[in-house]
Amino acid sequence: MAGAIEFVDGGTVTTPGGFRAGATYAGLKTYAEDKLDLGLILSEAPCNAAGVYTTSTIVSPSVTVTKEHVGGGPVRAVVVNAGIANTCVGNQGFEDAKEMAELAAQHLGVQQREVVVCSTGIIGVELPMSLIRTGIDQIILTDDGGHAVARAMMTTDTRPKEVAVTFQLDGRQVTMGGVTKGSGMIHPNMATMLAFITTDAAVDPEYLRPTLREVADASFNMMTVDGDTSTNDTLLVLPNGTAGNRPITAGSADAETFKEALLAVCVHLAREMARDGEGASRLITVDVVGAVDIGDARKAARSIASSSLVKSAVYGADPNWGRVLMALGKSGASAEESKIDLFLNGVCIMQNGLPVPFHRDAVVALMRGPEVTFRVQLNLGEGDATAWGCDLTEEYVIINSAYTT
Amino acid sequence: MAGAIEFVDGGTVTTPGGFRAGATYAGLKTYAEDKLDLGLILSEAPCNAAGVYTTSTIVSPSVTVTKEHVGGGPVRAVVVNAGIANTCVGNQGFEDAKEMAELAAQHLGVQQREVVVCSTGIIGVELPMSLIRTGIDQIILTDDGGHAVARAMMTTDTRPKEVAVTFQLDGRQVTMGGVTKGSGMIHPNMATMLAFITTDAAVDPEYLRPTLREVADASFNMMTVDGDTSTNDTLLVLPNGTAGNRPITAGSADAETFKEALLAVCVHLAREMARDGEGASRLITVDVVGAVDIGDARKAARSIASSSLVKSAVYGADPNWGRVLMALGKSGASAEESKIDLFLNGVCIMQNGLPVPFHRDAVVALMRGPEVTFRVQLNLGEGDATAWGCDLTEEYVIINSAYTT
Repeated sequence: MAGAIEFVDGGTVTTPGGFRAGATYAGLKTYAEDKLDLGLILSEAPCNAAGVYTTSTIVSPSVTVTKEHVGGGPVRAVVVNAGIANTCVGNQGFEDAKEMAELAAQHLGVQQREVVVCSTGIIGVELPMSLIRTGIDQIILTDDGGHAVARAMMTTDTRPKEVAVTFQLDGRQVTMGGVTKGSGMIHPNMATMLAFITTDAAVDPEYLRPTLREVADASFNMMTVDGDTSTNDTLLVLPNGTAGNRPITAGSADAETFKEALLAVCVHLAREMARDGEGASRLITVDVVGAVDIGDARKAARSIASSSLVKSAVYGADPNWGRVLMALGKSGASAEESKIDLFLNGVCIMQNGLPVPFHRDAVVALMRGPEVTFRVQLNLGEGDATAWGCDLTEEYVIINSAYTT
Repeated sequence: MAGAIEFVDGGTVTTPGGFRAGATYAGLKTYAEDKLDLGLILSEAPCNAAGVYTTSTIVSPSVTVTKEHVGGGPVRAVVVNAGIANTCVGNQGFEDAKEMAELAAQHLGVQQREVVVCSTGIIGVELPMSLIRTGIDQIILTDDGGHAVARAMMTTDTRPKEVAVTFQLDGRQVTMGGVTKGSGMIHPNMATMLAFITTDAAVDPEYLRPTLREVADASFNMMTVDGDTSTNDTLLVLPNGTAGNRPITAGSADAETFKEALLAVCVHLAREMARDGEGASRLITVDVVGAVDIGDARKAARSIASSSLVKSAVYGADPNWGRVLMALGKSGASAEESKIDLFLNGVCIMQNGLPVPFHRDAVVALMRGPEVTFRVQLNLGEGDATAWGCDLTEEYVIINSAYTT
């Protein structure tokens, strides 16, 4: 059926037509010497890309260079490194970001301004450009090299995060793939997250830009690990048009299908990122329904998903629902206590603002699973939203109390 | 010298003239059976009190009743319990808060509306009024009973937090005392914090109300433990006027002295609360100077003090200053990277936005002390602020993953 979105087993950024990728170990990720740390993605055709970037006032020069290149015309390639963030190193950071783009461009046979540059890792250390010069030249691109790039982007991530979906546009089969990395400094607007989404669909950039922002607000910006926001966050969509469909424009018949597919990819990656948050043992999903409006629903859902006390309770499989109410209350979203219903993994815990007796052992057993879901019904209006997070564990503290040492 | 503020050794809320207090173990704090959990403070003269309360949309009926009583005229007594928050229990919560005030009033020989009611502890459980009825009648008031009240307010606090200062107003020696409790759900605006401040000074309520808010904004609202905000936060100042000074009014000669004393008491208590945050092993102080304005300075200082990544790094005595810059960047405060200087316990770590080589072992040794101080100089304007927090430890997670179970 046209419009159906199907997930592709083992899909990644090289699953869509016309993309190749590869990665190497250049020596930047000294805390994990067996891993890849430098990757390239190449499109055979120019992409009218769109991006969403960190809102921090302290920004990596890599992000600044990427914004310039994406805003300046079609792009063809991504170069990404993990281990060092290229942030807070003064003007040298700009020199290095530009050189990294130039090295990638020479290796791939494209223009320097067609290359976007992304870095993630420790702040305040200069990129060792000699390692990057040698590393880029070693990278061999292949048709399934997306898997290697997904590994090369990882910092404290425990596993690569990849996805691809396929669907019909304008009678053509098109494919969209994505890779992302977390897994600390993760919070709405946005995270130490890098996410690259490729597609062989043709998409009008005037449609893609606002659509990407809308989708990011309902996916990556509803995901939180630790409330911190990185200096390097970048989400890019690279459509190369090789599927041959008429370009998707606002209001066109297929615009909604494309947006649904983009949302499916972004939500999938956001959930995987939350699930793999630093030290996380389980995923938290918070559904807030019936808020006065969507803004209130989002505020409430994010506040609950990011509360240290809620996160600690989930870790302990402790149905301490009072903390959910506390986090709802502090969010600033309109709420009337006597109208609130609360469900924990489907079990009603509170109705009309009053605790409902529940079988404690059963709820504790449900909470010991891989995912805990809170559903808060405010019964005030039509605003619905979902946020994703993860539990707070001793492991988070251990990971983050000795990261540079 | 008039105007000098001196701390009183062993001072508490019963140090000022005309206050007595006492506490008992009623049986509410089941997780700590050896501790007191129900307390009373009585003033021999009526107090034109002022309060600052939780900003949560989910509010304990105890707070609602307290607001009514403080707003309705002079008050004479405080009744406080720990163990149960009297929150999210429907209309019964109002009945219980009013009955608690009535029981205290009968025991103390004052009017019900002269009693303020404060509760802290678990949400969603009704107060066992039979225990409270018995408990209140057991309480014996003494001239140094403030120490017992400070213990009775504690939940996960590891020690009572008390202070008193003495100073001159209008040629009279006056005294101000305070008690407070934390130690989770602690964040600006405000915290699961209860704080009671007594003084024998006479103070005009029209002066006291805005002054208390101003002082709270520079003390308790600059203190954070875990980013969560409770449903029960209450800060009260009870001036009984028994020192015999002319009432302090706005613009009077002694107004600044009184405000300084109130600030000294509140900052002392806020620092002690942060130091005793759940699981904390050290106090974090963040000074932001030279921001565009005080609003920006406060935003930046609070963002740094409340960052999970900064807090984890302090726990590990890890001089990972990049996280301080990250937290500054995400705060939204104006910053220009090339103008920023950063000091860690007095050691310059960054100057004009560039890392300064420092003796790593010496800085790690400094960070192993009881207090870690970050000083961020933005060099943009005249806005200065200080925030207080604590490190994030495995112990925080352990405490909060099994609180109700």
